[in-house]
Amino acid sequence: MSIMPITNQYVKDLDREYVFHSWSTQGTLNPLVIAGGEGCTVWDYDGKRYLDFSSQLVNTNLGHQHPAVIAAIQEQAATLTTIAPATANHMRGEAAKRIIEQAPEGFRKVFFTNGGADANENAIRMARLFTGRDKVLSSYRSYHGNTGSAIVATGDPRRVPNEYARGHVHFFTPYLYRSEFHAQTEAEETARALRHLRRVIESEGAQSIAAILLESLPGTAGVLMPSAAYMQGVRELANEFGILLILDEVMAGFGRTGKWFALEHYGVVPDLITFAKGVNSGYVPVGGVVISEPLSNYFDTHFFPGGLTYSGHPLAMASIVAAIDAMRKDGVVENALDIGSRCLGPRLRDLQQRHASIGEVRGAGVFWALEFVSDRDTRAPLAAQTMQALKAALIERGLLPFVVDNRIHVAPPCIISLAEVEAGIAILDEVIGAVLG
Amino acid sequence: MSIMPITNQYVKDLDREYVFHSWSTQGTLNPLVIAGGEGCTVWDYDGKRYLDFSSQLVNTNLGHQHPAVIAAIQEQAATLTTIAPATANHMRGEAAKRIIEQAPEGFRKVFFTNGGADANENAIRMARLFTGRDKVLSSYRSYHGNTGSAIVATGDPRRVPNEYARGHVHFFTPYLYRSEFHAQTEAEETARALRHLRRVIESEGAQSIAAILLESLPGTAGVLMPSAAYMQGVRELANEFGILLILDEVMAGFGRTGKWFALEHYGVVPDLITFAKGVNSGYVPVGGVVISEPLSNYFDTHFFPGGLTYSGHPLAMASIVAAIDAMRKDGVVENALDIGSRCLGPRLRDLQQRHASIGEVRGAGVFWALEFVSDRDTRAPLAAQTMQALKAALIERGLLPFVVDNRIHVAPPCIISLAEVEAGIAILDEVIGAVLG
Repeated sequence: MSIMPITNQYVKDLDREYVFHSWSTQGTLNPLVIAGGEGCTVWDYDGKRYLDFSSQLVNTNLGHQHPAVIAAIQEQAATLTTIAPATANHMRGEAAKRIIEQAPEGFRKVFFTNGGADANENAIRMARLFTGRDKVLSSYRSYHGNTGSAIVATGDPRRVPNEYARGHVHFFTPYLYRSEFHAQTEAEETARALRHLRRVIESEGAQSIAAILLESLPGTAGVLMPSAAYMQGVRELANEFGILLILDEVMAGFGRTGKWFALEHYGVVPDLITFAKGVNSGYVPVGGVVISEPLSNYFDTHFFPGGLTYSGHPLAMASIVAAIDAMRKDGVVENALDIGSRCLGPRLRDLQQRHASIGEVRGAGVFWALEFVSDRDTRAPLAAQTMQALKAALIERGLLPFVVDNRIHVAPPCIISLAEVEAGIAILDEVIGAVLG
Repeated sequence: MSIMPITNQYVKDLDREYVFHSWSTQGTLNPLVIAGGEGCTVWDYDGKRYLDFSSQLVNTNLGHQHPAVIAAIQEQAATLTTIAPATANHMRGEAAKRIIEQAPEGFRKVFFTNGGADANENAIRMARLFTGRDKVLSSYRSYHGNTGSAIVATGDPRRVPNEYARGHVHFFTPYLYRSEFHAQTEAEETARALRHLRRVIESEGAQSIAAILLESLPGTAGVLMPSAAYMQGVRELANEFGILLILDEVMAGFGRTGKWFALEHYGVVPDLITFAKGVNSGYVPVGGVVISEPLSNYFDTHFFPGGLTYSGHPLAMASIVAAIDAMRKDGVVENALDIGSRCLGPRLRDLQQRHASIGEVRGAGVFWALEFVSDRDTRAPLAAQTMQALKAALIERGLLPFVVDNRIHVAPPCIISLAEVEAGIAILDEVIGAVLG
């Protein structure tokens, strides 16, 4: 394999011959070939370069190939790449310590998993065991992962062909632009969404509900940042009924919104936090659950019936330690906040002024959504094939977008510079103009 | 952290302060500290060395720190550590190609996951979608992973506190030493176990059953190798009733039994194969599903509703390519077969001759179980606290064992040498004699 020169065509052919892809109809695939990357840019074997406004699947918060994280992976590989989870491992302790340091007050321990899905699986398991209750409430507008319980906790339509777990109930969360509650203002949306949640809790029976599981900022569902008052209201409802609050920070955590955790925007402290992606920018597969003191204490004396071979994998742990240290040292979270408020947010709002097809712009830090509509008054979503044309044109022009339904999610690495934001905005401006007129 | 010298105590303290462990009561933990490893040996910060007769969690088939795999991880880290699964990636194609080359005839594509649990989750998903049926049959004596559906497919008692998925039915598989079928011979056990499975299928309704999911060699359940006739009979029952056969090769695959896949012992070809662990010795978290042609064709024209951020992660893919190439080049699978038949199996049977407490020895390649009993006639399992005393004494003497219930599973790396086998057997002999008299 090392004798022949690697080409885009060779890699694509190999892929189509042997590789089965996620979330797709295999016969229709034409995957983009990527050969390498650095910072906010990736390239193919022809040297064509792409500015990454997606952070892949919203995970490369440090951009591609951060040298300190790469060095840490290489060093750990040379020392001890894998060890059983029952042992004590230096990097595992250091990684857990750093996550606890960044978490809100009152969190004690970290349980490591392979990704976000099994982080949510284990948080649900802990909540059920701790409360002795069964049901889990989550939002229709959510994604919590692909495994048995995580995909049923997921509210979006990906749940529907996968409903093989029981005990999950969904409810509606705030989305003023397409309100489920006939609200006209954010205050009204908040109050009505909280009343709706209270009615669901009462109707399901509070004594049967182990946890409310929410993305602290629903991501793939549309970057739907709720009001602080809503999240505080959810916390109060959970307290009132003895229900645990699990916040899923898989996509929103570790700098994405300009905070270490998106929950900091609301001043709300949950009982369990789940994470993956940004914790190490996805350089090695990993995820986990951050556990508050009451649950940590409970499992000091109660058996925890969950586990996995690669829990606390040394290679993943070393990458977390290096990634968090680099984020602290380079001020990456501060950069995301600054870029978002000073440049990315304002520029996206400028685009909305210039293009009638953009119905709403919303987000924080380096996590934004442009919602495309065919009519600003009716807010009718732009047609799927027009969105696909937009996506193709953006890629052709060298910008990697994250396209979901009638939205473009703008989620560049947290390290992005002003110049890169301006370059990306210029491509968006030009392509939206060219495709949508 | 790099200024102070790292000690066993420092690492253990850090672990107990911040790290939440799998399958345990946190307050009772006293984890072994491991600093590094090479081949079949690991060591702590005091330089105390342990011969690894467990392959950690039966995953380091190539032993620790195989230089070619470490180099491949370091090289891929320098090139491109992560990329979204929707792209085409060179190492992903090469890894899938190699797995297809080692799989039985008629397998076409590989879907990569983060580990064995989500491999089984996705195999179950494929089977349900392909057949349009719901139920999944699996053995009471099995372990299939920790996530929502995988843990309920699991038959062993770890399932019981985790039954949050529906559609799973369990049955009994062959285990002549503790027969569920009152059998006296292997032929009787096979015939009666097949009759039992047929009765379960008929009683559940064949039209409702999507798949039979079996470990091709039930591992943690006791290294319970079935007869070839049993596995052939299961395949015939599946064919008769239009049920898919999923073989879980997570623990048994990639050399463990002296074959690339344990299914080669039976001459049986399933519809889907799941893998993890041995595919890259666990150097980077990864797992997957190997897909036969009918299912591959089906998903060419039908949407597959599953996926995950780290599917086909480049770092994991590079480690698979290097691991399979090294296993081929070094004759690792052949070594496992040779060592098992020429040395490890015979030596373990010698131990049984010398120690009345060993009721049965069974296995293949470098995958064996010693079943300890308090009475060879009644076959009463040895008491748990005696097993714990055995385990503690083995570790004290520098041998890492894999202890489950009343059994020691002997599962060293597939690269183990004759001298290392002899050294490990000598420790087992001495410790069994000392602890059990």
